[in-house]
Amino acid sequence: MSATAPRVVALTGGVGGAKLGLGLARRLPAEDLAFVVNTGDDFEHLGLTICPDLDTLLYTLAGEADPERGWGRRDESWRFLETLAALGGEHWFSLGDRDLALHVTRTQALAAGRTLTEVTAALASRLGVGPALLPMSDDPVRTMVATAGGELAFQHYFVRERCAPAVTGFRFDGADRARANPAVLAALASPRLEAIVLCPSNPFVSIDPILAVPGLRAALETAAAPVVAVSPLVGGLAVKGPTAKMMEELAVPRTAPAVAAHYGALLDGLVLDTRDEAEAEAVRALGPAVTVTRTLMESLEDRLALADAVLAFADTLRE
Amino acid sequence: MSATAPRVVALTGGVGGAKLGLGLARRLPAEDLAFVVNTGDDFEHLGLTICPDLDTLLYTLAGEADPERGWGRRDESWRFLETLAALGGEHWFSLGDRDLALHVTRTQALAAGRTLTEVTAALASRLGVGPALLPMSDDPVRTMVATAGGELAFQHYFVRERCAPAVTGFRFDGADRARANPAVLAALASPRLEAIVLCPSNPFVSIDPILAVPGLRAALETAAAPVVAVSPLVGGLAVKGPTAKMMEELAVPRTAPAVAAHYGALLDGLVLDTRDEAEAEAVRALGPAVTVTRTLMESLEDRLALADAVLAFADTLRE
Repeated sequence: MSATAPRVVALTGGVGGAKLGLGLARRLPAEDLAFVVNTGDDFEHLGLTICPDLDTLLYTLAGEADPERGWGRRDESWRFLETLAALGGEHWFSLGDRDLALHVTRTQALAAGRTLTEVTAALASRLGVGPALLPMSDDPVRTMVATAGGELAFQHYFVRERCAPAVTGFRFDGADRARANPAVLAALASPRLEAIVLCPSNPFVSIDPILAVPGLRAALETAAAPVVAVSPLVGGLAVKGPTAKMMEELAVPRTAPAVAAHYGALLDGLVLDTRDEAEAEAVRALGPAVTVTRTLMESLEDRLALADAVLAFADTLRE
Repeated sequence: MSATAPRVVALTGGVGGAKLGLGLARRLPAEDLAFVVNTGDDFEHLGLTICPDLDTLLYTLAGEADPERGWGRRDESWRFLETLAALGGEHWFSLGDRDLALHVTRTQALAAGRTLTEVTAALASRLGVGPALLPMSDDPVRTMVATAGGELAFQHYFVRERCAPAVTGFRFDGADRARANPAVLAALASPRLEAIVLCPSNPFVSIDPILAVPGLRAALETAAAPVVAVSPLVGGLAVKGPTAKMMEELAVPRTAPAVAAHYGALLDGLVLDTRDEAEAEAVRALGPAVTVTRTLMESLEDRLALADAVLAFADTLRE
């Protein structure tokens, strides 16, 4: 199975990860690239199983992501949601008419006994997406956000509450019982593997849920290929999303060394934005190698250039 | 509860029944009218519970029915369905983006443990519909159509196969175990009741499933009010739907006496279309009283006039 012996495995969560994912997908043959995708964001809503990170990556790689909103499908309409609101339904989570077709298809296939990995592969095939999109686990893991006002399911925190509550910690419900996706374990154990990339996704709620699945952190640590992370910070701030706000609330310095310390012994190299170059030595002092490049991805060229830089950096770290 | 002591109870199925239902709803105060609605057409599709007859009546009474198609909501769009088709999903049953909001809302409420009666009342209230819409049962009953090529679930016969297979019989799966809706039994037992109307719906697949629910035929027979049916035939043909085709295939004459014989002892009166006036005596010979009027409902005025004629006819049949 070529899908389980890729040259590059990328761990990813939301929008930032999908941007680098697109760069990697444009640079590598489909069979040489596999994604390990966070499913801690997944939730059940209106009777549907919704997988925001899988969908963001799927739509991005298919050229179907909305370029303005940063989430959901392009050419979207909202007749369903408007009518749902008129009927008194829960409409705080924006489900477009086109997007909904994917959620209904997936939910139906899961109810028929197919795994999330199988369903995702079928959807990717339909949308013409070549690289393997591998959920971290086929078992449900649900990120819970601890706040002063109590614990919130991730999407309630992220969408309904717009990340307003101050975060005190996280819990990955179900992670202790979740079985790592066998295709992920196979990919990480492959002797063909040349690089493992931690995309510039939120370390706390995009990458950590993946690492919380029993066996996955160990598989990353024992993999022959180097593990290279792209720092999600640019000038001490997050490009998008609550990463910087969470670091502030958790009393973690908003710095590259803090990101490196967070990933710990796992990390062989860290890619810093040019604006954070001054922090390179402090990162190296913690162990990882460092490369500095532009990590802000505004254009397709930016995505391709960062993908090139990450792959070249990983090459220098292989024995 | 005024909803369970109406003056008029109307049994109804699809489009023809909803047309007369609208006439009745415009003529009677909301608390004086209740509908007993066929749920044999209901089915599970794409993980949703879809109730076509309840929805046709609901949309019609709310002024939300599409006037051209004869089913579904007005001002509808089809982005969901188009995308579902592109993803390889089952798209033979046309679900509009707005219509879908109702199915999702209902399915979610049922999954949360509410009864179909409760869910329907909530939806009717949201849509500003006053008369009670009572499912014949809160338990699932599913009409199965026997054909030479085997048994088909109703919507597969009706929509997917466009009524093409020749019908040899019907089975109402689950009817033997279904409990009659208590609100229906209360309405039929009420001393206030003045008329029971069998709308001009398909006798085989709209009215018979209602009569197949244990206790409902008996409740109609013992009710103090007369039972008046409107023949679904006009000049020996059905206005819409497969009624005439089914009679042909079942070797039942396409005549008013055959309709009267089908309902049997239940019936106190039958309303015939003027085009079928010649059959009046043959119907009377079977027992029921007869009135003749225009039953074709093209305009709102037609609906109102038929409602008036039915109510006046029932008045003449009360002791």
